[in-house]
Amino acid sequence: MNDLEALGRRARAAARILAGAGTAQKDAALRSAADLLESRAGDLLAANAADVARAEQAGTAGPVVDRLRLTDARIAGMAGGLRQVAALADPVGEVIDGWVRPNGLRIRRVRVPLGVVAIIYENRPNVTSDAAALCVKSGNAAFLRGSSAAIESNRAVAAVLREGFAKEGLPTDSVVLVEDTSRESAVAFMRLRGYIDCLIPRGGASLVASIIENATVPYVIDGDGNCHVYIDASADLDMAVSIVRNAKTQRPSVCNAAESLLVHADIAAEALPLIASALDGVELVGDGRARAILPMGEATDDDFGREFLDLKMSVAVVDGIGAAIEHIARFGSGHTEAIVTRDLEAATRFTREVDAAAVVVNASTRFIDGEEFGFGAEIGISTQKLHARGPMGLRELTTVKYIVEGEGQIRA
Amino acid sequence: MNDLEALGRRARAAARILAGAGTAQKDAALRSAADLLESRAGDLLAANAADVARAEQAGTAGPVVDRLRLTDARIAGMAGGLRQVAALADPVGEVIDGWVRPNGLRIRRVRVPLGVVAIIYENRPNVTSDAAALCVKSGNAAFLRGSSAAIESNRAVAAVLREGFAKEGLPTDSVVLVEDTSRESAVAFMRLRGYIDCLIPRGGASLVASIIENATVPYVIDGDGNCHVYIDASADLDMAVSIVRNAKTQRPSVCNAAESLLVHADIAAEALPLIASALDGVELVGDGRARAILPMGEATDDDFGREFLDLKMSVAVVDGIGAAIEHIARFGSGHTEAIVTRDLEAATRFTREVDAAAVVVNASTRFIDGEEFGFGAEIGISTQKLHARGPMGLRELTTVKYIVEGEGQIRA
Repeated sequence: MNDLEALGRRARAAARILAGAGTAQKDAALRSAADLLESRAGDLLAANAADVARAEQAGTAGPVVDRLRLTDARIAGMAGGLRQVAALADPVGEVIDGWVRPNGLRIRRVRVPLGVVAIIYENRPNVTSDAAALCVKSGNAAFLRGSSAAIESNRAVAAVLREGFAKEGLPTDSVVLVEDTSRESAVAFMRLRGYIDCLIPRGGASLVASIIENATVPYVIDGDGNCHVYIDASADLDMAVSIVRNAKTQRPSVCNAAESLLVHADIAAEALPLIASALDGVELVGDGRARAILPMGEATDDDFGREFLDLKMSVAVVDGIGAAIEHIARFGSGHTEAIVTRDLEAATRFTREVDAAAVVVNASTRFIDGEEFGFGAEIGISTQKLHARGPMGLRELTTVKYIVEGEGQIRA
Repeated sequence: MNDLEALGRRARAAARILAGAGTAQKDAALRSAADLLESRAGDLLAANAADVARAEQAGTAGPVVDRLRLTDARIAGMAGGLRQVAALADPVGEVIDGWVRPNGLRIRRVRVPLGVVAIIYENRPNVTSDAAALCVKSGNAAFLRGSSAAIESNRAVAAVLREGFAKEGLPTDSVVLVEDTSRESAVAFMRLRGYIDCLIPRGGASLVASIIENATVPYVIDGDGNCHVYIDASADLDMAVSIVRNAKTQRPSVCNAAESLLVHADIAAEALPLIASALDGVELVGDGRARAILPMGEATDDDFGREFLDLKMSVAVVDGIGAAIEHIARFGSGHTEAIVTRDLEAATRFTREVDAAAVVVNASTRFIDGEEFGFGAEIGISTQKLHARGPMGLRELTTVKYIVEGEGQIRA
């Protein structure tokens, strides 16, 4: 048994205990860990300073170093996150449905923890506590693999969480951190079948590609958001301008920001200049019809398929809702797609025919996340269709178990 | 683009149309295909005769040839299956839940088809129609890959289904059959990412292992059932004997048959001889304590971990429910686990602590399937935890879509 398997075995053993832990105990453990994070802030800052110094020596870009950095405020934020998860409803034990068969068998479908939930993530040390909180609240062991850049910080945060959880009687191994952050270890981690019940990547396209190619454990992909806003001919133009500006610029670096604008040909000449002036500072690249209305760079297919995550947006003029839906089917990533319209038939058709985790009518794409949906916290936004689709909260960290009760029934 | 991708593209195009097809149209198409299967029985039998002759020439074992063989009765059964699925409730469009956010956004979660559902399956030609019926009823295109042994039969059945569905205006490519049954094609099929939304294997352990190793498309595993029956000290012995006999012998070749018997030490001396005499014709292999009570072969760890699918059963004497749960955690496959008991605390503990798709109290393991659960038909029994767990009916062939409606809301 190699080291990673030994860690997996520890997480598995903890998961069996966590599955039976009551809500009150889990909540107390989360609050205990929150208190300990704050009282040990000095240790965390010292560990983090080592990571930050190493990153700076390596010439890491400023924004990346900033994401890596812990401060008192960020530690307070992590503690607050733990307390917030403690206050959420526990999904474990929910009886989803149940019925009685003609032979008297009583069947019910009950929500249970997944077991061991593994997260691979990148720089931010707060993911260590955010992910652990959601896993433990939903009765799962958290099996975490952060980046080498944040290893000292992650080790310090994980140690505090383990101690805090154990204070309330949960297993120390409720949180297990993989400290070998080599590339080989990442692939071995994805192949720990039997030890990991669900792997969730929190990272970029290359991590997702590696999981699709290499993983043998079950996973849920939190993938790209190449989100479109389609402005229908009937749209209220003030609303269209406001929604596109918000979807594109309110926080361009996140997956639910809009990346592509589709405008109905009938209103393009009027709408495009209004939208462009509201998108001050955004680089637009468009198809021939858009460029005939407004000067902008030429958009290639690669642009239309790209998640810019930046102040850049592709623009196409389309002949109608059918063409918009076709464009989205070709270039969309299945995350979030929005229409601005006053026409009921267009709204109905768009929501029916567009195949995405979320289809939005007359609102910003930026609302598609766990907080805005009211889930309290999210572990990610699934862009796959199996198990979970869209924002993932505590419920998505569970599976079901059928409980079947009889009085000696046998099958004829 | 290779041939398989071209087929995938056709299935994908059909899936987009099927996703919008109404229930009445889908049901009419299923009944049309059922009628055509019966009126074309002669063609089907002729095609099947070629497969059977080839299998016999190759010296294929009798039971395998029998599973391959079509008869008028089996064709009628396939037609009946299509009509049965037509009569089931359509899961598509169900609003699972919905709520309004403080900002006025109206969110609802709606059940939608997966898209393209792929099935890899072995000899039985009836899977072609059974699987296609469930896929099409749930609004999915069926992308089917049967075995080379059944290729003529599968081609004939698929042709009839395609014609029958098209008669009611559904796309001909609602059913797409892969005719290249080479080993390389199987692996290429599992890697058609972008064309397959869910792959379900209907086959043995080597097929499942190949999917886990090679697949890049999402899949749901219909895996082994190493099902246990645990006889608690408090069990009604008549009930225990009846349940074990039924679970082991009523149909030993299926995944929900029992493979292993665990008996509480306090009643083992009385219970084991009674059970053994009821299991006339079943080979028992046991641990030392079982063999001290009753003469039988020695059970290795391999025996305890094995799905015999035959009239063979492993036996262990355990000190109590805790030891039974530990044994199941070590050797079980997560399919179905049963307890026979009169003790409420034991029943509660067993259902809470055993981690399996189905946990059964005082009934045979044989009830864990889609028909017996009342689903009307099943596409398989999932032994994984993500997406679906346990018997899979029409509902498990769907995913969800969030529909979010507003009046111009933007995020602050």
